[in-house]
Amino acid sequence: MSAPLTIALDAMGGDHAPQMVLEGANIARRRFPQVRFLAFGDEQRIRPLVERAPGLADICTVRHTPDAVASSDKPSVALRTGRRSSMRLAIDAVDSGEAHGVVSAGNTGALMAMAKIVLRTVPGIDRPAIASYFPTLRGESVMLDLGANVVCDADNLVQFAVMGEVFARTVFGVSQPSIGLLNVGSEEQKGHEEVRAAAAQLRATDLPIRFHGFVEGDDITAGTVDVVVTDGFTGNIALKTAEGTAKLYSAFLRGAFNSSLVARIGYLFARNALNKVRQRTDPRRYNGAVFLGLNGVVVKSHGGTDALGFANAIGVAVDMAGNDFNSRIRDEIAHLHAAPAAKPEAVTG
Amino acid sequence: MSAPLTIALDAMGGDHAPQMVLEGANIARRRFPQVRFLAFGDEQRIRPLVERAPGLADICTVRHTPDAVASSDKPSVALRTGRRSSMRLAIDAVDSGEAHGVVSAGNTGALMAMAKIVLRTVPGIDRPAIASYFPTLRGESVMLDLGANVVCDADNLVQFAVMGEVFARTVFGVSQPSIGLLNVGSEEQKGHEEVRAAAAQLRATDLPIRFHGFVEGDDITAGTVDVVVTDGFTGNIALKTAEGTAKLYSAFLRGAFNSSLVARIGYLFARNALNKVRQRTDPRRYNGAVFLGLNGVVVKSHGGTDALGFANAIGVAVDMAGNDFNSRIRDEIAHLHAAPAAKPEAVTG
Repeated sequence: MSAPLTIALDAMGGDHAPQMVLEGANIARRRFPQVRFLAFGDEQRIRPLVERAPGLADICTVRHTPDAVASSDKPSVALRTGRRSSMRLAIDAVDSGEAHGVVSAGNTGALMAMAKIVLRTVPGIDRPAIASYFPTLRGESVMLDLGANVVCDADNLVQFAVMGEVFARTVFGVSQPSIGLLNVGSEEQKGHEEVRAAAAQLRATDLPIRFHGFVEGDDITAGTVDVVVTDGFTGNIALKTAEGTAKLYSAFLRGAFNSSLVARIGYLFARNALNKVRQRTDPRRYNGAVFLGLNGVVVKSHGGTDALGFANAIGVAVDMAGNDFNSRIRDEIAHLHAAPAAKPEAVTG
Repeated sequence: MSAPLTIALDAMGGDHAPQMVLEGANIARRRFPQVRFLAFGDEQRIRPLVERAPGLADICTVRHTPDAVASSDKPSVALRTGRRSSMRLAIDAVDSGEAHGVVSAGNTGALMAMAKIVLRTVPGIDRPAIASYFPTLRGESVMLDLGANVVCDADNLVQFAVMGEVFARTVFGVSQPSIGLLNVGSEEQKGHEEVRAAAAQLRATDLPIRFHGFVEGDDITAGTVDVVVTDGFTGNIALKTAEGTAKLYSAFLRGAFNSSLVARIGYLFARNALNKVRQRTDPRRYNGAVFLGLNGVVVKSHGGTDALGFANAIGVAVDMAGNDFNSRIRDEIAHLHAAPAAKPEAVTG
């Protein structure tokens, strides 16, 4: 990939914006020499940050915006009053074709609402989903939805499966990604109506999808499947439960290494190895949730992240934008709608 | 507590039954000298195991049962055909008053179905829930439902809150347990209809309940509240996600300590401290999920556990049976129904 790629940045989104955003862009600049940035926000605050980083000024255009969406704004309020906000104008840049993708660490609900209005969903997709990848015993998997849709029907779940499959294929490079539906057991009769109906549809489809069946909560980190599909309520809670458990484990470890002089000596010897574990489980490494199902690449960074985390979120946007991602989703979804799963049709004479 | 307490054991339930069950009983015998056992199952297989453990024979009565529920049996089949199974007869012993509680490592669905039929729910409780406690940054919390009810309405969630509160008060000894409803955000408008309606009921109730509000997935292990209330679908997935994440973290650690000679030396120094972490996060330590809302104490052990894990499940049953648990739930629920939350009533002349 050497063709120039432009990423729009919401420079005002996130707890430590705009400094974290521009520092993140500067880290990403060294990783992705083909990338250019369009930074949207308060010019007076952004301009000095860009000029402070040698080399960034050459590839980063600053666009002044008078407003910014607050993290506490309701999505409906942000939609109405945020037309001149850094978030909205950064999304507009994707819509107009000026940018190949947008990254924001701002208000998730507002970002999703604006992205839906401006970019609209891919034909055949009823609702976009939030996806992210995370470490497993076998490597990496992707899970969706992580919170965009609190209530989902079977059709939504099937569409998420298709989007997740395309994501794993194009971004991970897995040739035949396996797909699992998150449930409370692996038997066919388990779970609620929506998840069982979605499984029936995925079993019956003639899409070239490798449907594994139901998976359980511990299959997420076991890496049983490449794509874990669930509704946004369950997915959000599973993701945050995993984050919380990792924090608990780290805290127990810290306590253990501080519990005696001998343990502290052990820590000194094992420090390098333990740092590798820390890196592998570092939430910044997996920063950058993707909004799938929109006509454009939108990546949401964690609001509390730092420059390194934000640089990783930019990396996700670069991966997505560099691939022919959305047109592949369009094709698969069109196929799904063209060939409904083996429903008997009346023979007309 | 020195009054004798009788625990009925389903000696045929679990992957390593009956050996694991009787060995577990033998471990529990030393921890709880006041406990007596009634072991139900295949006498020819159980009797030698009891006699092999000196001291166990004196306090363990063996009751022969011709059948056993298989782990693959559907609950409806187990109900119809399992009337002479070890599981069913162990539950019957609680109903008849012969035993103060029952512990089984068998088929969860069958155990719940039989327990509901035989023991029935406490008046005012529509559905029993599965609860378990687990480690947090602040100590221990209890979460329910963990899978008995895949779909729950607001009333179910409110009843779970009451049962969880009584559990934390009587079994943990927390004087004023705080209660959180699991959701995708802490703001009032977040989540689906059921969880919002349950929150409104819990805010309005005049029960002496300390309702914290909504909590998120990472609050479970943070120990933000003493009682985490959720539907059985979400709770089951959260629990298993946490287990899977702990496994992933352990595997990463093992890999790190094996990655170099220096790291292996570090492990030798830190071994004792690390063993403490292993003990604190050992799933066997938290083995023993409780069925709340029934007229009797029913504890479900993990099917794959060993003797130590089964002994812990027996410990949970002893804790529950020793407390005046079910009558407290009855009182609180009666109060809940007697004083509906501030609904305006028509004034009649």
